[in-house]
Amino acid sequence: MKARVSIIMGSTSDWAVMEKAAKFLNEMEIPFEINALSAHRTPDEVEKFAREAETRGVEVIIAGAGMAAHLPGVIAAMTSLPVIGVPVKSSFDGLDALLAIVQMPPGIPVATVAVNGAQNAAILAMQMLAVGDVELKEKMKHFKAGLKDKIVNANQTLAEHKFDYRVQ
Amino acid sequence: MKARVSIIMGSTSDWAVMEKAAKFLNEMEIPFEINALSAHRTPDEVEKFAREAETRGVEVIIAGAGMAAHLPGVIAAMTSLPVIGVPVKSSFDGLDALLAIVQMPPGIPVATVAVNGAQNAAILAMQMLAVGDVELKEKMKHFKAGLKDKIVNANQTLAEHKFDYRVQ
Amino acid sequence: MKARVSIIMGSTSDWAVMEKAAKFLNEMEIPFEINALSAHRTPDEVEKFAREAETRGVEVIIAGAGMAAHLPGVIAAMTSLPVIGVPVKSSFDGLDALLAIVQMPPGIPVATVAVNGAQNAAILAMQMLAVGDVELKEKMKHFKAGLKDKIVNANQTLAEHKFDYRVQ
Amino acid sequence: MKARVSIIMGSTSDWAVMEKAAKFLNEMEIPFEINALSAHRTPDEVEKFAREAETRGVEVIIAGAGMAAHLPGVIAAMTSLPVIGVPVKSSFDGLDALLAIVQMPPGIPVATVAVNGAQNAAILAMQMLAVGDVELKEKMKHFKAGLKDKIVNANQTLAEHKFDYRVQ
Amino acid sequence: MKARVSIIMGSTSDWAVMEKAAKFLNEMEIPFEINALSAHRTPDEVEKFAREAETRGVEVIIAGAGMAAHLPGVIAAMTSLPVIGVPVKSSFDGLDALLAIVQMPPGIPVATVAVNGAQNAAILAMQMLAVGDVELKEKMKHFKAGLKDKIVNANQTLAEHKFDYRVQ
Amino acid sequence: MKARVSIIMGSTSDWAVMEKAAKFLNEMEIPFEINALSAHRTPDEVEKFAREAETRGVEVIIAGAGMAAHLPGVIAAMTSLPVIGVPVKSSFDGLDALLAIVQMPPGIPVATVAVNGAQNAAILAMQMLAVGDVELKEKMKHFKAGLKDKIVNANQTLAEHKFDYRVQ
Amino acid sequence: MKARVSIIMGSTSDWAVMEKAAKFLNEMEIPFEINALSAHRTPDEVEKFAREAETRGVEVIIAGAGMAAHLPGVIAAMTSLPVIGVPVKSSFDGLDALLAIVQMPPGIPVATVAVNGAQNAAILAMQMLAVGDVELKEKMKHFKAGLKDKIVNANQTLAEHKFDYRVQ
Amino acid sequence: MKARVSIIMGSTSDWAVMEKAAKFLNEMEIPFEINALSAHRTPDEVEKFAREAETRGVEVIIAGAGMAAHLPGVIAAMTSLPVIGVPVKSSFDGLDALLAIVQMPPGIPVATVAVNGAQNAAILAMQMLAVGDVELKEKMKHFKAGLKDKIVNANQTLAEHKFDYRVQ
Repeated sequence: MKARVSIIMGSTSDWAVMEKAAKFLNEMEIPFEINALSAHRTPDEVEKFAREAETRGVEVIIAGAGMAAHLPGVIAAMTSLPVIGVPVKSSFDGLDALLAIVQMPPGIPVATVAVNGAQNAAILAMQMLAVGDVELKEKMKHFKAGLKDKIVNANQTLAEHKFDYRVQ
Repeated sequence: MKARVSIIMGSTSDWAVMEKAAKFLNEMEIPFEINALSAHRTPDEVEKFAREAETRGVEVIIAGAGMAAHLPGVIAAMTSLPVIGVPVKSSFDGLDALLAIVQMPPGIPVATVAVNGAQNAAILAMQMLAVGDVELKEKMKHFKAGLKDKIVNANQTLAEHKFDYRVQ
Repeated sequence: MKARVSIIMGSTSDWAVMEKAAKFLNEMEIPFEINALSAHRTPDEVEKFAREAETRGVEVIIAGAGMAAHLPGVIAAMTSLPVIGVPVKSSFDGLDALLAIVQMPPGIPVATVAVNGAQNAAILAMQMLAVGDVELKEKMKHFKAGLKDKIVNANQTLAEHKFDYRVQ
Repeated sequence: MKARVSIIMGSTSDWAVMEKAAKFLNEMEIPFEINALSAHRTPDEVEKFAREAETRGVEVIIAGAGMAAHLPGVIAAMTSLPVIGVPVKSSFDGLDALLAIVQMPPGIPVATVAVNGAQNAAILAMQMLAVGDVELKEKMKHFKAGLKDKIVNANQTLAEHKFDYRVQ
Repeated sequence: MKARVSIIMGSTSDWAVMEKAAKFLNEMEIPFEINALSAHRTPDEVEKFAREAETRGVEVIIAGAGMAAHLPGVIAAMTSLPVIGVPVKSSFDGLDALLAIVQMPPGIPVATVAVNGAQNAAILAMQMLAVGDVELKEKMKHFKAGLKDKIVNANQTLAEHKFDYRVQ
Repeated sequence: MKARVSIIMGSTSDWAVMEKAAKFLNEMEIPFEINALSAHRTPDEVEKFAREAETRGVEVIIAGAGMAAHLPGVIAAMTSLPVIGVPVKSSFDGLDALLAIVQMPPGIPVATVAVNGAQNAAILAMQMLAVGDVELKEKMKHFKAGLKDKIVNANQTLAEHKFDYRVQ
Repeated sequence: MKARVSIIMGSTSDWAVMEKAAKFLNEMEIPFEINALSAHRTPDEVEKFAREAETRGVEVIIAGAGMAAHLPGVIAAMTSLPVIGVPVKSSFDGLDALLAIVQMPPGIPVATVAVNGAQNAAILAMQMLAVGDVELKEKMKHFKAGLKDKIVNANQTLAEHKFDYRVQ
Repeated sequence: MKARVSIIMGSTSDWAVMEKAAKFLNEMEIPFEINALSAHRTPDEVEKFAREAETRGVEVIIAGAGMAAHLPGVIAAMTSLPVIGVPVKSSFDGLDALLAIVQMPPGIPVATVAVNGAQNAAILAMQMLAVGDVELKEKMKHFKAGLKDKIVNANQTLAEHKFDYRVQ
């Protein structure tokens, strides 16, 4: 089994956030790998990783990082695979990580999602894989249809709140 | 009994905030309805809701949403009823929700209140209904007069703090 | 002819922004009035205005202000009419005016629109008046339908840009 | 005994912050008064207060407020006494209150201190009173000299932290 | 020729920014289409577009929008294709558009690029298409290699600046 | 003639802003002095100035500074006179200067006015002097009364804009 | 033993942050000293400290401060030694301290590190000392090499998370 | 002649800002080199540069970058030399560049200066070199003494502004 998506993060403290990406891919039965890599502490390993990812069969990279979050951009500079960046909140409500990931200069995009939005990163990765994969496309449609259920449940919960002037 | 005000929100997690709108309308004996609707998860239901609200007799819509809060603006795009937007705080102290609601482009206004300001949204809805409704206008004046009492009570509480050089 | 909407602003320098509200109301044939009033320079006149607006037949107030923009909130405190606030940009990209208008405390809402969003303020005022006015409701629907035309025109303009790989 | 300084605030919830102003004035034996007043809920009382403060012998006003903090500016508009504004933190880390107080338009200044900086507001009030009062000027110098002691104590505390390579 | 990438924007005023995406795709010989669509002014057309894009053969959508930029998120809600969002700067230095695009709730990601980063959006679209397309993958690598040349040129330009103490 | 107010600034580039303070004091016939002093470039001169200001008869200090604006706080640390700080805009719309001036720690207040608000600084200085000076108090009241005239003029200007549906 | 690095801070409440600088220097066996000094409460002591630091053999100064953080800049103004500034978080997520430290005017730099980044300040101090010190240079390289180990450990921890579709 | 300071920047568009660093070093007769290097476009060259800088005799690195400014941090990760980061303003008033440079994680500091503060970066580099270099230390003191002259000139310029109530 080859990993189609590679999840990387700067430290284990990012796991609480990035775990949601792993869970989603697992649920969707998309093979993935997880690694800790630091743009600042292990630049050689980062480079090796970025250079070899494509050869190893990886198709999309999800990179989470906080503060002056360089990891997603540095990886993007060294691969032609699409890179999805997850700003991990640790200071300034995650604004520093968001800007350090999204504001990439011309030539090297990082597909940025919301602060701590690791699940959405995994959904986006699946959408990218589904571009040329009919089966995944179906799964994605199924997943999207399922989002409705949350709202149905929400309405059932809200229905429990009774007010004299509430119309139902 | 027809709902004159419709309260909508993106998920049940917004209820803790939006409840204050329901309580105020209930207290003022203005018939209202409450629904969960998501601009992103149930776009069809949102459209159906927006298209039919006026026909069903709804006169004002209050929409609460957080993060990239699209619900109020999306509803406003599909109805000619006035829409009041409540930015619900969940990240960036609610700044993302505030800007995503208030910064609407020319042609489609959303009447925005403070972050988590659901009670004020209900007061504003009542003021709109009162434009052509003498009875509600009287109630509104009565409510406004009552705001003074809080200050009177506040002064009584403050009077308990004794200092040698305090003049009373 | 009685003014149904009252447009107020802190100084003539706000006119370039607030003019759009006047133009829209004029186009919609809704009688309105325009006045300069300053929460800080003419507090007595502001009070007199706020107290008498309703008696004079005004149904909605639109107040534009910049910087520490107190005018909309101060007016809202003195009337039970709905007040629409327009943050006028003059410093901090209008963020100071936006926060000083939208972040009203419980009890006294101001219906806030985008920075410099005076036209939207007028549209919102019309929506409020239309709550109990069938004719205005029709006009509003007509106006909303007209918004589409801009997009049609936009597409015609965009169609002029030719690229070898553009599909039309 | 006439109050030389008047402390006002929008609600009793501001007391936890504003108490520090009262304590400082008390310690300095400067007569003061404390009142709750709301620019939005009791505009008439605010006006009455502002108009009469000078006649009653008040020389400086300290006004604390949060969110769209209009109280200091509204008071400043109605009196020629110097008004000191204290932004009280309740949302956006107090940025909304700070901007709504400090960004006053030309003609009506409010002397703004740090977010929650009520003690500094009282010190500033004392400095203003001391402009024409030799005795207060001496007290102020004495107070300023005392600020050093905190640093002396800080150094004694820091001295307790032992490190092999610390030089003392 | 079917469009593989669909570029949409809210108004022709966004063209100056979005043009860079069209130019890049054209240069890379990737068939694309361009349309103006407004989440707020033409909600029906937006829905029709989103529903039919996949059937028409579109594989990736690039959506540019400013202010309370709902277009990318609204499209993403109605399709299972990957959607790339370009925040277009028009107020608050583009911060409102950035937050309104990137801060999407769980379930509906938008792949966000830098403010005005339309060229990067097109590069990202190409990277997504290249996931299952060997030829595009080669083109992408070629493009990336070409980025170096800019730096080589930059160094030649910098070499012209002579200083006595510059070492070359 | 002794200077009652001392205006200081970090460099001549601040003069365009600080000139308004000088003009106001001149108009009010309050003796003042103007000096350039830099907390960073001439710390000794700053100290000498701060230590001697009171002895020389200065009663209030107005200090303007931009960026990491330390001058007002540094002066305030070395004198017991009230210090008014004017944040001068040169980067970040003046937010850096505003925060560096207003966020003083307990014990050393700086009376902060709006970004570039030098005229208001002078008005505030006059209000402080007027605390113990009946003549100045009268002048201040006269000045405040004059603020109304601007609004009267504003209304005359606004009256020139004719609309079919404008009520005057 | 002479202190090569001097750590200063505004109050003992900064110790929890600044302690990390002391620990790092101790571990690296670089002699240092720790003092509390306040730019605002003890300006004379600050000046004395700054003037004498170099004579006493200090080679680098690390200064931590919060809010309107003037200490690093004021010290930098009075010495020609390099000064490293640590913004200590106490309000606005440390943004006020960051801007008040980093935005120094031309002529007087402060080498600023991240909010609460005291350990990095100590590393930077060591890098400066190592410029002319071969032994320290070796230690620094050794330390940098050690940063890798954290990542190795992180990967071991991450390896414990098992998923059906995880590839390892 | 070996370069003691190495100035690097992401593109020639940064030259207008970074030139001030070159000019200062030239004036101080400190040998330096200038190169364009991009963390994103030429990652291999960046690594080669970082690895060899020390061997080539470089003692301090000054790196300027804008937007998601990774260059200074990426260089710092690959060398044990001190790295000074200059945030170059191109969007968000330079806030994105500032946060992406200063908010480095523990272990890898970047000595950050003000937005566009290239001259200060050069001064800081000189201060670092002067740690073990008596001659440079003297030059630095001389330079600092010269900063006073600007203020003297400023006062002469200010002296030209005459007011009836100005005391000189």
